[in-house]
Amino acid sequence: MGGDHGPEVTLRGLAKVIERRPDARFAIYGREETVLPVLNAIPSLREVSEFTHCDVAVRMDDRPSQALRQGRWKSSMWRAIEAVKNGDADVCVSAGNTGALMAMSKFCLRTMADIERPAIAAIWPTIRGETIVLDVGATIGADAQQLVDFSILGAAMASAVFDLDKPSVGLLNVGVEEIKGQEEVKEAGRMLREAALGSMRYEGFVEGDDIGKGSVDVVVTEGFAGNIALKSAEGTARQIATYLREAMSRTLMARIGYVFARAAFQRLGEKMDVRKINGGVFLGLNGIIVKSHGGADAEGFAAAVELGYEMVRSRLLEKTRATLDLYHARTPQSPAGMAAVNE
Amino acid sequence: MGGDHGPEVTLRGLAKVIERRPDARFAIYGREETVLPVLNAIPSLREVSEFTHCDVAVRMDDRPSQALRQGRWKSSMWRAIEAVKNGDADVCVSAGNTGALMAMSKFCLRTMADIERPAIAAIWPTIRGETIVLDVGATIGADAQQLVDFSILGAAMASAVFDLDKPSVGLLNVGVEEIKGQEEVKEAGRMLREAALGSMRYEGFVEGDDIGKGSVDVVVTEGFAGNIALKSAEGTARQIATYLREAMSRTLMARIGYVFARAAFQRLGEKMDVRKINGGVFLGLNGIIVKSHGGADAEGFAAAVELGYEMVRSRLLEKTRATLDLYHARTPQSPAGMAAVNE
Repeated sequence: MGGDHGPEVTLRGLAKVIERRPDARFAIYGREETVLPVLNAIPSLREVSEFTHCDVAVRMDDRPSQALRQGRWKSSMWRAIEAVKNGDADVCVSAGNTGALMAMSKFCLRTMADIERPAIAAIWPTIRGETIVLDVGATIGADAQQLVDFSILGAAMASAVFDLDKPSVGLLNVGVEEIKGQEEVKEAGRMLREAALGSMRYEGFVEGDDIGKGSVDVVVTEGFAGNIALKSAEGTARQIATYLREAMSRTLMARIGYVFARAAFQRLGEKMDVRKINGGVFLGLNGIIVKSHGGADAEGFAAAVELGYEMVRSRLLEKTRATLDLYHARTPQSPAGMAAVNE
Repeated sequence: MGGDHGPEVTLRGLAKVIERRPDARFAIYGREETVLPVLNAIPSLREVSEFTHCDVAVRMDDRPSQALRQGRWKSSMWRAIEAVKNGDADVCVSAGNTGALMAMSKFCLRTMADIERPAIAAIWPTIRGETIVLDVGATIGADAQQLVDFSILGAAMASAVFDLDKPSVGLLNVGVEEIKGQEEVKEAGRMLREAALGSMRYEGFVEGDDIGKGSVDVVVTEGFAGNIALKSAEGTARQIATYLREAMSRTLMARIGYVFARAAFQRLGEKMDVRKINGGVFLGLNGIIVKSHGGADAEGFAAAVELGYEMVRSRLLEKTRATLDLYHARTPQSPAGMAAVNE
C-alpha cells in the first residue's frame, strides 16, 4: 500500500522480480479494493502470491506513535512484518512510511540480543563498486559501543550482499587537524582495533569523500551525519544531472553530440540512477526489513525486493548473530562502562 | 608558503587577481629563497606587492599546537594574520595548514564579542546559484546558541558576497519521522523564529539534498555533519566526473559525440570545478581569513583571494557586528541558559 504510487508501482515491481528470480513467492498485504484490481491484471504474479486483506493501511504522513496505536496487529504494514516474525516470510519489503515501519519493526521483531538500537543501512554506488553506509537515519547520535555494533551489522551485510569474506570497515570522521572527530568515534576506533574481529578488516577513519571513492566496503557513522551525507550526495547527483541536461541541450553542436553519444549517456544515467541503489535495510532486528524509497518506480521497488532476496539467500541473520555472539562473549562487560569513557 | 605547491601556485594566482582587480595590493610573507625567484619573475605582481621575509614557515603536517608554539610572532602564517590585526591588510588568504591557520587566527584576532567559537563557511554551487554552508569543520558539535550565532555570521556573509538584503537561512536537519533531529537544532530553530532578525529570513529546517537545490542562501549546521556533507558532495562530484569520462571514451560513437559537444562539456566541467568554489572563510573573528584549498591551482587560489576582496569591499565585518549587537542587546541573558534547555 505504501509509497507515492501504491500497488500500481509495488506490484509491477514484483512482476519484474519474478522474471529474474523465478523461485520468489510473495505474501501481499493491503486493502483488497486497491490491490486486487492490479494484482489480477498480472497473472504471473497472482500465481505466486498469497493476498491478505487488511482494513488499515498506515499513511505516509502518520506519525510513528500514531501508526503503532492505530495499526498494530491489523495494518498491512504490521501484518507484513509479523509474517517475518512467524516465519511465513523470509523478508519484509515496504515502500511506506519509514518512521512507522521502524517503530513497528522494533515493536514486533525486537532488536537482536546485545544490540541496543537498530540502524538503517544504505547501499551507495562508488567508483569501485558499492559501499554500505550505516546508520543513515534510524537514530540520532550513537555512543562508541553502538558504533561498534553498527560495524558488526554492516560487515555482516557486506559479506552477505557483496559475497566477501572479510569486508573492510571505516568509521566516518572529519579530517580537520587538532579536533579530529567526536570522542565517541575515537573510542569506537580503539574498541574495533582491540577486538580484531575475524568478520571484518577495520581500516580506521574515513572522510566523506571516501564514500564515493569506495575506499572501504562499510562506512559506519551515527544517523544524523549519515543521513546528511546520503542526502547531500543524492542532491549533488541530481544537481549534476541537471547541469548535464542543460549543457547537452543548449547548442546545436551539443545536441548533435548527444545523438552520437546517446548510448554512453544512457549508461551514465543508469550509474547515476538513485532508483537502483534505493532500498534501506533495517539491521539489528530479529528479521530482515527492507525499506524502499517512497518515490521509487517499479524498477526501484524490484531492486529493493531483490536486495532482500539476496540477503536471505546468503543467510545474513545467521552471519550477524555469529559475530555478535563471538564479540560479546569475548568482551562481556563491554557496553555501558567502556562506551562512557572518553579519552 | 602554503598549499601543495607553494609560491609557484599562490603567486601565479595573485597575478591573475591583478588582471581582474587592478586596485588590489599584496603583502606577501614567506621565505625569501622560495618566494623571491617566483615573485621577481612576475613584474606586474612585484610592482603591487610588499614582501617580508620570515624565517619560519608552518608545515602542512604540523599540529596546530606545534605550529602555535614554533610559529607564533614569527612564521609567515602568523605575520599575515597579524597584518590584518594591525590594519596593514584587509584580509589574509592562506593555502596552508587549516588547523594551524585556525589556531593562530583565534589566538591573534580573537573571536568577536558575543561569539564563542568561530566557524568555517564554504560556498557551495547549487542549481540556483550558490549557497553558504557553515560550519564545515572548525568545531565538533554546537549548542543552540552557537547555531544561532552561525546563522547570523552566515547571513552577514551571504549579504556581503551575494549582495542580498535579507538572505534566507535554513538549519540542516534530518527528515526521518519521529526522531526529527537533534535537540540543539530544534532549540536553535525556536530561537531564530523568536528573534525574527531583520538581517535574515529564517526558513526552518532543510535536509542534505536541499543544499544542492539551493533552497536557501545559508545552510547552518555543526562542524562534524557540515564537514561530512561537504566532503560527501565533493566525492560524488568527482565520482560522476569519472563516470562521465569513462562513458565518453568507451566507444567510437561516444568519442565522436564528445567532439561535437566539447564546448558543452567544458561548460559543465567549469560548473563542477571544485577549484572555483574553493575557499573556506573563517567567520566570527575580528578579521577576515580565507583558507584556500591546499591542492588548489593558481585559478583556485585567485578565486579565494577574490572572495576575500569582495567581502572586504562589501564590509562584511561591520555588517556582522551590527547584527550581533542588535541580537545580543535584545536577548542579553540568552546564551548559556537557553541553550541548555531541551524541549
